[in-house]
Amino acid sequence: MKTLGYYNGKYGELEDMAIPFNDRVHFFGDGVYDAGPSRNYVIFAIDEHIDRFFNSAKLLEIQMPVTKAELKQILQEMVNKMDTGNLFVYYQVTRGTGIRNHVYTEGPGNLWIMLKPAEISDGIEPIKLITLEDTRFLHCNIKTLNLIPSCVANQRAKEAGVQESVFYREGGRITECAHSNVHIIKNGELYTAPTDNLILPGIARRHLIDKCKELGIKVNEVPYYLDDLFTAEEVLVTSSSNLCLHANEIDGMAVGGKQSELLEKIRKAVLGEFVEATQLIQKKAV
Amino acid sequence: MKTLGYYNGKYGELEDMAIPFNDRVHFFGDGVYDAGPSRNYVIFAIDEHIDRFFNSAKLLEIQMPVTKAELKQILQEMVNKMDTGNLFVYYQVTRGTGIRNHVYTEGPGNLWIMLKPAEISDGIEPIKLITLEDTRFLHCNIKTLNLIPSCVANQRAKEAGVQESVFYREGGRITECAHSNVHIIKNGELYTAPTDNLILPGIARRHLIDKCKELGIKVNEVPYYLDDLFTAEEVLVTSSSNLCLHANEIDGMAVGGKQSELLEKIRKAVLGEFVEATQLIQKKAV
Repeated sequence: MKTLGYYNGKYGELEDMAIPFNDRVHFFGDGVYDAGPSRNYVIFAIDEHIDRFFNSAKLLEIQMPVTKAELKQILQEMVNKMDTGNLFVYYQVTRGTGIRNHVYTEGPGNLWIMLKPAEISDGIEPIKLITLEDTRFLHCNIKTLNLIPSCVANQRAKEAGVQESVFYREGGRITECAHSNVHIIKNGELYTAPTDNLILPGIARRHLIDKCKELGIKVNEVPYYLDDLFTAEEVLVTSSSNLCLHANEIDGMAVGGKQSELLEKIRKAVLGEFVEATQLIQKKAV
Repeated sequence: MKTLGYYNGKYGELEDMAIPFNDRVHFFGDGVYDAGPSRNYVIFAIDEHIDRFFNSAKLLEIQMPVTKAELKQILQEMVNKMDTGNLFVYYQVTRGTGIRNHVYTEGPGNLWIMLKPAEISDGIEPIKLITLEDTRFLHCNIKTLNLIPSCVANQRAKEAGVQESVFYREGGRITECAHSNVHIIKNGELYTAPTDNLILPGIARRHLIDKCKELGIKVNEVPYYLDDLFTAEEVLVTSSSNLCLHANEIDGMAVGGKQSELLEKIRKAVLGEFVEATQLIQKKAV
């Protein structure tokens, strides 16, 4: 298969799949998701993603229709059917199906899965960013399907000819990017926003922190600000789609580039872990 | 028909309708909507609703696939097919269809319509409310499909055995309800939050203001606070689903009930306008 979709037990190419009119996602965006890469038919960090997925659902009181083990098996079986083992593995649960009514439907939610080919960047080429005010809601710790502000921010980035947008709240506090976490190197140490309700607890962020600690780089999970971003020694952008990117331009101004060796050590450690975890040894095993 | 759905030119009972997997609403809640009542097959305040609908789409840069006149005609033709003329007339536009990608798809959006039987309350029976912190995003002036916080608030209201939730921002400033606007009578005058980015410019709110002015009641479109709400002479709740309700309890405490005559004048004026505008004279005319 080139792409593969799943909805409550039905499978098909994405463009052949159809969803009931009364799925609550249609009227409220009422659902949560998670996603990550596979390489060589091995889904990276799958247990961490599934744990976060179930936690997002729990925070919104959405009942999961499968267990973690069942989901993991369905995902691996689907990955195994694909023409390539290098994929974006995406899954979501929506609250249920019923005539539009804000009050929750009862019973288990609807499970969706979507696979498409994708490659993880090696992170060598720097990216460019713009900054935008963070006007999102105060539940950014939950990976919900209420993503209009992130779509608008990505559109603004595209129009500016850059790859991502960095959000800042009142007072210039940096939160995260439209679909990534953002971090800086300052005095040779990593600074990254704490995991409160303003940012997603990124799994790539977690791996970055772990690798920095292994490398003896001090990690500061504290608020930092626009000034810090523009004067940072390096600016890192991480997500499960692109594990370790760095920026050399924000709002048209040059940034970073002052700790190239340290950056390269971090990049190699993060990418190295991914490559090692996704060797062919597990190919198509379920 | 008992219910009637529409999606890009296809019609059917809601439970028979299906939506392509790649409609962007599925991954981002990327769309806007509007809705209002019909009575006797006459859609109330339709031009105002369609104007707001098109404005919401414009604010999110979603291309409408029909003109205002075309939409009005489709809606009336659909209303005419129904078993009852007393309906909830709901329509939305989602940004388009394409493999999940935050950046906008190009071209016109997807038009959805949903009709179901509904009656407007006569507003005589008081309702009960709870208060909740307003944790929504800063685009509440746009009628988007990113409605998870409103669903949660309605669920909390249901669990508390009340009909609606009143949102307040930092400092106790009242914004609106989960799916209504809220207003108070204080010193015989109407107070209602100004139409900034924190509230939806309600059409029922507009009609309430107009009727108050016609009745010689001074209208103050200014911020007001939790204290004002709890000490108000009356608390009014308006929406296109229930044009003029009032509350007698908030968070378990008695409120309002101190301007019954004024309240009754307002209620009669608002409901009277609706009843007059939806007489049978236009029945099934397109």
